[in-house]
Amino acid sequence: MDPYPKPLRDLISQLKRLPGVGEKTATRLALFILADRENLAEGLARSLQNVHENIRLCSVCFNLTDKPRCSICQDPLRDASLICVVEEPSDVLALEAAHTYKGLYHVLHGLISPMGGVGPDDIKLPELLERLKRSHVGEVIVATNPSVEGEGTFHYIEKIIEDNKLEVRVSRIASGIPMGGELKYMDQVTLASALRYRRIVKDR
Amino acid sequence: MDPYPKPLRDLISQLKRLPGVGEKTATRLALFILADRENLAEGLARSLQNVHENIRLCSVCFNLTDKPRCSICQDPLRDASLICVVEEPSDVLALEAAHTYKGLYHVLHGLISPMGGVGPDDIKLPELLERLKRSHVGEVIVATNPSVEGEGTFHYIEKIIEDNKLEVRVSRIASGIPMGGELKYMDQVTLASALRYRRIVKDR
Repeated sequence: MDPYPKPLRDLISQLKRLPGVGEKTATRLALFILADRENLAEGLARSLQNVHENIRLCSVCFNLTDKPRCSICQDPLRDASLICVVEEPSDVLALEAAHTYKGLYHVLHGLISPMGGVGPDDIKLPELLERLKRSHVGEVIVATNPSVEGEGTFHYIEKIIEDNKLEVRVSRIASGIPMGGELKYMDQVTLASALRYRRIVKDR
Repeated sequence: MDPYPKPLRDLISQLKRLPGVGEKTATRLALFILADRENLAEGLARSLQNVHENIRLCSVCFNLTDKPRCSICQDPLRDASLICVVEEPSDVLALEAAHTYKGLYHVLHGLISPMGGVGPDDIKLPELLERLKRSHVGEVIVATNPSVEGEGTFHYIEKIIEDNKLEVRVSRIASGIPMGGELKYMDQVTLASALRYRRIVKDR
């Protein structure tokens, strides 16, 4: 017989859907939530409901927002001639945390993956093309991860810009040895890429 | 400027209140919840609200329940002459998972802790005494953890039963080397306790 009442068992099941949360962690979290004196259950429920009801995708760049257009797209100080293409909303957060990029974004919500059955029309690529056609964009920086899917999506973007004869510069974020990384611990592909894309510092 | 909309930021703050969840994990969980296609946000919100509204403490043993009396107290097959005293609802779960105990429980919701400012009346000890006075209980098994507070609470229970001249046997769960444990890795206190409470197998 289950010594726990059904509402608690349901909460444990829901928590188990979170990444990296198994039966033990879910039970621990559920009991913590219940034992909490300051109404964590209610606060968390309200936040989740609020997110569920109010968070949508920006109509321009598809970043997460609670308004028709996200705060970055609305900011008049951002350079609208630059578009950085990323896979997910969390990539926007990571880039914003670096405080160097002052252009706009385009969130694809996925990468082309023939193995995973994800085609160009399953992600926000048609929307990117429309956006490039209707606005004056000087450069598209493709900042997808340096993975098979990330590179494939990059080449696809290169190709559609070429095919549509758009006057847009296309660039790819640098890949190489991360700052603080050590050569001896790097994989072969990273080392090969770091050598291939070396910067000429002094030409002769 | 915060690239994330306020409802999302609020959700991250709420998730950070969970044990072992920092800024990074909270952000990862929040984005996972949002990216999820099967309405995890709504399901989780509903479960939390349900738990918040429907989970209470059993009026007899103070275990978690969604009814006036918990499923264990209601079960006519359980031995009502046995009461196992534990610190927390999760201890009930652990003991039930062992499938050996067929008596009832009493959940203290804490342990006496002079250092932490927790006295006997701050936990469900007066309720335990009342319960022992009004029902015919043959044995009270004190299954608090073998810690300073757990031992202190055990001795307090022993004392109030003595002081009130209740005809109740009091026992303490065994402490020693756990099954599969190795002597060489055990701490001194555990070894001392394992020796002190050794079982006589063959007397001469």
